[in-house]
Amino acid sequence: METFLDCLPCVLGQVLEASRMATDDAEIQAKIMEKAVAILADYKQYSCSPAIVRDMHQVVKQLTGVSDPYSAIKARDIRAAKKAEPFLTHFLEQKQDKLYWALKIAATGNILDSAICQNVDIEAGLETELNKAFSVCDIGVLQDALATAKQILIIGDNAGETVFDRFLIKQLAALHVVYAVRSEPIINDATMQDALDSGLHDLAEVISTGCGAPGAILAECSPAFLSAFESSDIVISKGQGNFEALSDCQRPLFFILKAKCTMIAARLSVSLNDYVCLYATPSAEASDD
Amino acid sequence: METFLDCLPCVLGQVLEASRMATDDAEIQAKIMEKAVAILADYKQYSCSPAIVRDMHQVVKQLTGVSDPYSAIKARDIRAAKKAEPFLTHFLEQKQDKLYWALKIAATGNILDSAICQNVDIEAGLETELNKAFSVCDIGVLQDALATAKQILIIGDNAGETVFDRFLIKQLAALHVVYAVRSEPIINDATMQDALDSGLHDLAEVISTGCGAPGAILAECSPAFLSAFESSDIVISKGQGNFEALSDCQRPLFFILKAKCTMIAARLSVSLNDYVCLYATPSAEASDD
Repeated sequence: METFLDCLPCVLGQVLEASRMATDDAEIQAKIMEKAVAILADYKQYSCSPAIVRDMHQVVKQLTGVSDPYSAIKARDIRAAKKAEPFLTHFLEQKQDKLYWALKIAATGNILDSAICQNVDIEAGLETELNKAFSVCDIGVLQDALATAKQILIIGDNAGETVFDRFLIKQLAALHVVYAVRSEPIINDATMQDALDSGLHDLAEVISTGCGAPGAILAECSPAFLSAFESSDIVISKGQGNFEALSDCQRPLFFILKAKCTMIAARLSVSLNDYVCLYATPSAEASDD
Repeated sequence: METFLDCLPCVLGQVLEASRMATDDAEIQAKIMEKAVAILADYKQYSCSPAIVRDMHQVVKQLTGVSDPYSAIKARDIRAAKKAEPFLTHFLEQKQDKLYWALKIAATGNILDSAICQNVDIEAGLETELNKAFSVCDIGVLQDALATAKQILIIGDNAGETVFDRFLIKQLAALHVVYAVRSEPIINDATMQDALDSGLHDLAEVISTGCGAPGAILAECSPAFLSAFESSDIVISKGQGNFEALSDCQRPLFFILKAKCTMIAARLSVSLNDYVCLYATPSAEASDD
């Protein structure tokens, strides 16, 4: 997906936040912003917004020496998500349509995204969020595909959300589940360590996308990931960053996300903060590229 | 005041808004953003954030040919403010301390600032806002100064707010009141035409600052304005933009504003959205410059 003009101030605000998480040194923060603005000037050279974010946050890492500025935030979110597990288990037990509600739990985990919404009181808002229906819901297509599928790939998003994804993976126990994470720390996205801390290894084969951007940019992904991407019968992409990176790709995908910004919401023809479970097939336009 | 790092994403978001008000042409909007980012790269060359904003919005005017992108917004805000006048008159009539509440009305007019908060329902929020006390209030100093003052200069801020300022000016009827506006349209700030539309000419001598930035940057103001600035016994500066431009200046000033952004609030040691009526004298540090 092309970078929206609205992404420019947004990613700049995000890198400022990251710089402050990594250091208290105002001079280094200023230097980071200087380099971030220089990257912004070249925004048209980037395939999508996650690629810009990756390069900007690389500057944070280089100039501060802090490889994972959001590590404390991610640990906090994983802890909070684990604390919510008994509640989520009870919530799902009461539901008839387990797959729908497991998908909904996995989608709701996206509210732990501290990059966009910093002070989330999970306990308070969780039930309200869970009970919001998907405003786009292609679960019928997913159910049909599951009838014959052998392998499913889930491309993960944030740390903490990973714990919520366990509920979805458990519903897919008949299949071989591959779960992909970022190749290195970027904002609050889940890495291999975060997946481990979330207990995903017990339920799925966890692999790296090979890409350090906050979205799986195929041109930068590893052969191992691309092989799983091609060979899986079903691919579920989670969150906005993966949607931005994969919305024009050449294979059918399920996008599960909460539309947290107006541009993504507009692109999906939904309202801001709506939940989406969208089955997308390559458009004729994209196929002609 | 130096430009905060937080200003960078904020001014970029503001110029995108302005570009969309001026044109529907996405290519022109993209060109504006490209030039705005180039200006941002030079942010350290600017004395303060209003100077950056001025140059960015100059790009909007040049590339769209629209000299006043916010004209409809300003007309709307002036209309809304005029509609609120009877309510404000009644509100003030019931108060004992007319000067305090006239200052408070003038400060509250700042919520009409559509550049920061676009969809304000003036009628609904007005009484609540009016009844919020100043969290910094140097009205005693102002009252002392008024006892001997002959001329007062008010440096205006937004269109619409101008109508609210009429209530303050009426309390100053014993003095010669000079009211300064921007030399040309910039965001939703009041120009000579907006002052005229707000009925300020009946109550005050309206002059231009000679500066087209959304803050009176003294180095860019006209000799006529500087003369009024120096010779007035009292100067009242309204809004954040003027505070950013004048906070380090070499004469005592009264700053009346609502702290709409976290950085300004922190600088004033108040909470976000607090109202301030601050008497500021040149600091020793600034005097040494």
